[in-house]
Amino acid sequence: MSKNTKINAAILIIGNEILSGRTQDTNTSTLATWLNSIGVKVNEVRIIPDVEKTIIETLNFLRKENNYVFTTGGIGPTHDDITAASVSKAFGLKYEIHKEGFKILESYYKPGEFSEGRQKMIWMPENAELILNPTSGAPGFNVENVFCLPGVPSILKSMLGGLKNKIVGGEPILSHTISLRTVESEIANSLSKVQDKNEDVEIGSYPFFHAGKLGVSIVLRSENQSKIDICNSQILEFIKDKKIEIVDR
Amino acid sequence: MSKNTKINAAILIIGNEILSGRTQDTNTSTLATWLNSIGVKVNEVRIIPDVEKTIIETLNFLRKENNYVFTTGGIGPTHDDITAASVSKAFGLKYEIHKEGFKILESYYKPGEFSEGRQKMIWMPENAELILNPTSGAPGFNVENVFCLPGVPSILKSMLGGLKNKIVGGEPILSHTISLRTVESEIANSLSKVQDKNEDVEIGSYPFFHAGKLGVSIVLRSENQSKIDICNSQILEFIKDKKIEIVDR
Repeated sequence: MSKNTKINAAILIIGNEILSGRTQDTNTSTLATWLNSIGVKVNEVRIIPDVEKTIIETLNFLRKENNYVFTTGGIGPTHDDITAASVSKAFGLKYEIHKEGFKILESYYKPGEFSEGRQKMIWMPENAELILNPTSGAPGFNVENVFCLPGVPSILKSMLGGLKNKIVGGEPILSHTISLRTVESEIANSLSKVQDKNEDVEIGSYPFFHAGKLGVSIVLRSENQSKIDICNSQILEFIKDKKIEIVDR
Repeated sequence: MSKNTKINAAILIIGNEILSGRTQDTNTSTLATWLNSIGVKVNEVRIIPDVEKTIIETLNFLRKENNYVFTTGGIGPTHDDITAASVSKAFGLKYEIHKEGFKILESYYKPGEFSEGRQKMIWMPENAELILNPTSGAPGFNVENVFCLPGVPSILKSMLGGLKNKIVGGEPILSHTISLRTVESEIANSLSKVQDKNEDVEIGSYPFFHAGKLGVSIVLRSENQSKIDICNSQILEFIKDKKIEIVDR
């Protein structure tokens, strides 16, 4: 893929604990921020339960619609960890012990501690490529464009470094934020006119409450810095006319 | 719907700011926790961009597959707020000023301050029912089983009280958590056997790091307290045999 092609991805969060509200997902934000920084645009995120049929169907849809799919969760040793088995079925591959993964965990644990329970963590689709885990040993893996990562946020974060050379991104998506002491309705019309004149820049408007005061952050996003700059100067112009204060945020 | 039917919902988070990683979504967790407490099971969550075609297609799929759909985001006054217009198109309804909503905002703002920009917030699908907003005036709305809420977390939370009487839930889903000073691989086999014997209880296993120590939370979920109790006692039995410490968490 050329550096200039638009590269996109879907994130698939697997886990009943997110759908019950018990656990606050933070992996979406971690992955999305990282993917943006390497020029991969996140098209969509889905959060689904630990149900084999749902995982298989969702994965088989997303992997055809996107350059990359990143899954989180369900690759641990317990009965509710069914991601690796489901990915095997989605690709029609054998589900088996990964020889290289076996060696990694065998040397990670003390002699005699690499139990049957722990061995479940290196059952993977045949010929899966490993994604190394510097935190807790058990690797993630990928099959073609589907990358399977753990659900524990600190472990997931520690694996992104090793993942980077497996992903070919496009131009990084640049962004610029202007934060204002105003309310959205005050700037809505002017902002809409700027958007109409700058179709290649995605302009987002996000109200915030900070230190007891209302404000709005305007976020400009594009692969092209000079287009962001033009858009920025048009916004600064109407802000000046309206005597709206710019604030740090 | 009878109180005993299983009632389910999808959550649809609309907003480029979540997909770019700029904003950490917390509305999923808020809505999921609340829905569980009133007996509505969340089947899936999708996070999609502010793109009309995507909103319409996703909504038309989800509203047929689920008893309820809750959307967040995109109902403010700026150009990137396109949820209300998209919902109108998804249902084939006119997009127009909501008379009751107009009166609410007219009296909410000081005379002369209910500007054209602010009026955009009460453009809705025809005959939409309002969801009152005790925080900042501008109401959400629902059309049939699709409930549209704002993206700002504090405002969304303040609207749940008024939303409650519009939702018919099933039996609340009960849960019980046992937290242990152990690692998942230590209990995986025993836990799997308990799951096999207790098909009506959903058993989840979640590793945690807390105060520098590793642990595992086992979460039992069911609509039936006595089934949870039976499952719990079987788990306590193998924990005792394995001499695993129970911890507060």
